[in-house]
Amino acid sequence: MKKSDVIFGIHPIMEAINSEKEIDKILVQKDMRNPAIFALVKAANEHKIPVQYVPLEKINRITTKNHQGVLCFMSSVEYQDIENILPMVYEKGEVPLVIILDRITDVRNFGAIARTVECAGIHAVIIPLKNAAQINADAVKTSSGAIHNINICRVSSLLDSVKLLKNSGLQIVACTEKSEDTIYNINLKIPTAIILGSEEDGISNELLAKADYLAKIPILGEIQSLNASVAAGVVLYEAVRQRLCE
Amino acid sequence: MKKSDVIFGIHPIMEAINSEKEIDKILVQKDMRNPAIFALVKAANEHKIPVQYVPLEKINRITTKNHQGVLCFMSSVEYQDIENILPMVYEKGEVPLVIILDRITDVRNFGAIARTVECAGIHAVIIPLKNAAQINADAVKTSSGAIHNINICRVSSLLDSVKLLKNSGLQIVACTEKSEDTIYNINLKIPTAIILGSEEDGISNELLAKADYLAKIPILGEIQSLNASVAAGVVLYEAVRQRLCE
Repeated sequence: MKKSDVIFGIHPIMEAINSEKEIDKILVQKDMRNPAIFALVKAANEHKIPVQYVPLEKINRITTKNHQGVLCFMSSVEYQDIENILPMVYEKGEVPLVIILDRITDVRNFGAIARTVECAGIHAVIIPLKNAAQINADAVKTSSGAIHNINICRVSSLLDSVKLLKNSGLQIVACTEKSEDTIYNINLKIPTAIILGSEEDGISNELLAKADYLAKIPILGEIQSLNASVAAGVVLYEAVRQRLCE
Repeated sequence: MKKSDVIFGIHPIMEAINSEKEIDKILVQKDMRNPAIFALVKAANEHKIPVQYVPLEKINRITTKNHQGVLCFMSSVEYQDIENILPMVYEKGEVPLVIILDRITDVRNFGAIARTVECAGIHAVIIPLKNAAQINADAVKTSSGAIHNINICRVSSLLDSVKLLKNSGLQIVACTEKSEDTIYNINLKIPTAIILGSEEDGISNELLAKADYLAKIPILGEIQSLNASVAAGVVLYEAVRQRLCE
């Protein structure tokens, strides 16, 4: 991450928040009792910016300057709003296809998925505020720069997003091994949001319960799951295939 | 890589070669004029084991013991012979599906591809002696252990392997953007070997010339290629889909 992507000190960070700059997260020194910092955290919460409390040493490792106990990472991407994207997709006469990443925190997986999203012409990738991969220099590099060419929507609740997508006419397909159906049995030519979970835990039960369909990628071997970015490629390209060929 | 995976000294390495142990590669100190080392290199060549000439310092960094100018990395996998695998596949009544990796040298990509090969039930992955990813601890980890459950064939010439595969009744499909056909236009239900190239250079012209079909993964965005392990997933699972669903 470039040095210029980091801002420190109460006043500069407060200014970044209030001017609606894209902020990835804010680090706050543990046990600070400064009212100005309380106000800063309140403003961050209002703007749905993640705040993390860390020991002084962690901030000192990032900057030796006078940081006053707060430091913030600027985002290298401009997040989009899914509510603005869908009408544009429909207006262009295209059929929405978006992917929701539930707790995919590995930076390289996220980068490779972003690259696939760009190559496959997917309209948006939706990630949560928390438990998402940090969009740092490694992610941008693994994505071959795709991160700057795709629509990334960062939302405070994936459940709310699923509700919104359903209200906008999208079916919700959860890609999970907890199903007898395969992705090849599902019609992906209609407006669709595909949920992909983490390699460790899969998709959360709350999200699974909201899906219209559960569908698995068939596994013929002993290892029970693909790498997350490979799984994303397989399911997104199945949608591409159906839309191009059927 | 574990320390136990390294052998040094002329006699122990000669013994490993002659007892047909699986060796990944041998490092030989540059400018050595020792006849015993010449004999060792000759034996290595006869056994098609890659030999690399390196400065003394490189070997010294790996071991401080008396290495006599030679050091060898034992393989953590037991390589298979494609000529033995194909008859077994046919005997089981299965339709061969193998993947040939042309100069895919990234260790993590190789690991993720190995995992996909296992999950998709692919019969073998064929890699060249040179210009292949080192199958080290990182590769095994990225593969989720799949590297130990799949058939890996290491060959001195991919061109010769392609000839052998053709003679064994497999069609050769080169996955390349240099084609108007997509992978969805190709019948992958018959015995098939799929060639995948490096992200940098694609597939070599010599191999492309030997392929029966060139076929691309359709790219709808601006970035002209997928991550290599994602591309492998997309094309291998297209074969799985055709075989399961058509």
